[in-house]
Amino acid sequence: MLIVQKYGGTSVGSVERIRAVAEKAAACKDQGNQVIVVVSAMSGVTNNLTAMAYELQKQPSPREMDMLLSTGEQTTIALLSMALQAIGCPARSYTGGQVRILTDNAHTKARIREIDSDKIRHDLDQGKVVVVAGFQGVDEEGNITTLGRGGSDTTAVALAGALKADECQIYTDVDGVYTTDPRVVENARRLDKITFEEMLEMASLGAKVLQIRSVEFAGKYNVPLRVLSSFEDGPGTLIVSEEDLMMEMPLISGIAFTRDEAKLSVVGIPDVPGMAFKVFGPISDANIEVDVIVQNIGADLTNDITFTVQKKDAEAATRILEKTATEMGARGVKVDDKVAKVSLVGVGMRSHAGIASRMFEALSKEAINIQLITTSEIKISVVIEEKYLETAVRALHNAFGLETAPA
Amino acid sequence: MLIVQKYGGTSVGSVERIRAVAEKAAACKDQGNQVIVVVSAMSGVTNNLTAMAYELQKQPSPREMDMLLSTGEQTTIALLSMALQAIGCPARSYTGGQVRILTDNAHTKARIREIDSDKIRHDLDQGKVVVVAGFQGVDEEGNITTLGRGGSDTTAVALAGALKADECQIYTDVDGVYTTDPRVVENARRLDKITFEEMLEMASLGAKVLQIRSVEFAGKYNVPLRVLSSFEDGPGTLIVSEEDLMMEMPLISGIAFTRDEAKLSVVGIPDVPGMAFKVFGPISDANIEVDVIVQNIGADLTNDITFTVQKKDAEAATRILEKTATEMGARGVKVDDKVAKVSLVGVGMRSHAGIASRMFEALSKEAINIQLITTSEIKISVVIEEKYLETAVRALHNAFGLETAPA
Repeated sequence: MLIVQKYGGTSVGSVERIRAVAEKAAACKDQGNQVIVVVSAMSGVTNNLTAMAYELQKQPSPREMDMLLSTGEQTTIALLSMALQAIGCPARSYTGGQVRILTDNAHTKARIREIDSDKIRHDLDQGKVVVVAGFQGVDEEGNITTLGRGGSDTTAVALAGALKADECQIYTDVDGVYTTDPRVVENARRLDKITFEEMLEMASLGAKVLQIRSVEFAGKYNVPLRVLSSFEDGPGTLIVSEEDLMMEMPLISGIAFTRDEAKLSVVGIPDVPGMAFKVFGPISDANIEVDVIVQNIGADLTNDITFTVQKKDAEAATRILEKTATEMGARGVKVDDKVAKVSLVGVGMRSHAGIASRMFEALSKEAINIQLITTSEIKISVVIEEKYLETAVRALHNAFGLETAPA
Repeated sequence: MLIVQKYGGTSVGSVERIRAVAEKAAACKDQGNQVIVVVSAMSGVTNNLTAMAYELQKQPSPREMDMLLSTGEQTTIALLSMALQAIGCPARSYTGGQVRILTDNAHTKARIREIDSDKIRHDLDQGKVVVVAGFQGVDEEGNITTLGRGGSDTTAVALAGALKADECQIYTDVDGVYTTDPRVVENARRLDKITFEEMLEMASLGAKVLQIRSVEFAGKYNVPLRVLSSFEDGPGTLIVSEEDLMMEMPLISGIAFTRDEAKLSVVGIPDVPGMAFKVFGPISDANIEVDVIVQNIGADLTNDITFTVQKKDAEAATRILEKTATEMGARGVKVDDKVAKVSLVGVGMRSHAGIASRMFEALSKEAINIQLITTSEIKISVVIEEKYLETAVRALHNAFGLETAPA
């Protein structure tokens, strides 16, 4: 098998840990696999470099920032290669530019365009473990670029895609993807498998095991992705496409939630066409992302439009809405940042009716009032009062029997 | 003027110092010059990286060592470019590979083969200060290489040569080249000018202001080199070719000395041909460098061969010599590591007789016994008992009137 392993900053945070990563990679090779290892900067390094940059320049040049930060992963690849060689495992390191991982020139948030796999294949065929710097690439003019947050995951998945790897293993500080946050629900269960689509919903809703972009990428190129722990052994969670699962999916895979939203309403909007655009146009112009949107007609035939934004954007959005409300003759604006969003996620719900009503029933039994509801093909989300969040998640986890694996 | 400035690790050892270097480079540009700045790793960085490498591997892979250490300068170029931009001076950084500075593939001690000056010229023409990582290059396969000790000086001189710069300024922690070590002779004088040849003799004899290789390089490509202080203003010392001096040179430019030698003798060697080769062959095979060599015939018509080596090699050389002495029927081997070498250096001595006798006279007045003498075109060296070193240097400095500048 051809396996790409990715280790984050904590996993390579010291010489000892780098040695442990070398052992893991070498063991994987000794089992007869070809192994590519993608690593991040040692934990702390990126922050130190960033701090120096901001001491020198208020808004550091993106090109120079990439030049600076890319040294972090370069340090790790050299050290890891030495650690591998020290235990008798042939190894060779490459920076993103050396591979080469060609990106566009959007410094600090570049996108991968093309990966040249020749050097890597050559080394793999010679029995070497290939160690690649995550997070970085090079543009057509040879400038060093970086891929932005979670970029090392993206590097790993992209390499796995380019080399048609059998599996891309993402080593993290958790041992897999859970039905929900184990800190909230004690008997939350590690999932053996989950689909890309479900993982995307879980990740975007605040279950931050993987970066959304790397999951999208993996789904697009159909790279089997496995999340597992750097610190303990275990099978982790395999993320695959629905077709590859070859089994009936459970109705619900997990429960995601976030406290990071605020609810805004424009109330008493005159019922004439174009009002929704008038509300959301200026919000979008201010680059504020809107999540759940609900519109309903009140008893007096005026409209209320309610939606959620990230908490950090609530103040700016409110100021914009107040201006809009005046212009359009609406009655006013209401803001509530004491809300939370809870979502059931599962590809199985597509073919099963009644999930929503079971959800509402479970919440109703706990006397939790539902403020907003929104649904997609594989997700049902409700916005509730923040203080009921834990209660709601536990009730739902229980109602759908997530603590036990499907037969 | 096109000026290359080089700042070492201490000069860029902190964010504050990087800011000070940016001020110096920007000031040079504001005077109407085009400026290229070559920098080393921040002081301490290379040692930290090296320590981690040795923790992981007893003999770290040279290729991975270069991968590792080259991050040091890369960090500095990014930070310095930010510091320049922060004070309104357009700047752009390049790694050795990006320039590209093509080297052979002798990792950790690579030699520069070729420098592509296109990108740098383009940036200079656009009014940018170009910041280049010292010490590093790239081989034909794209592997990162490093140039070994003092490599940043070499980078600066090589760039100055390739771009036909008007001056290559090496900023150090001293304010120039002195007639001799000011710690030994209080009224040692900073030289305004010195020739490449003299500088080579001064440097190789232990006056460690510049790396020998960079001086050789500068001489070869006739790049005017200036040594000056990063911390205080001043003209420093200009190092040029003899022809460019356009003035009569003083007899003696300076006095170099070293305590780092040991004297070895093989005594009572039968007077037959090939004996010198028998003595030095095995020494050379052991990669031990030999300095002063003197051979003389004793009263009994046997030969004595005496020479000096670096102190660290004395023990190994002695062991080899003892074996050789037995084989060749010599009487024995003598070792003395309590010696020092003092040298008068000056291109002026070529055209003047009598320098040697003035030197011997001065030493004789101090009752200092001369053990060995060796001369080259621009240098006379004597080996004396180590405890007389300071006395000898002061006496010679005085005898040749080095405390006052030539008229």
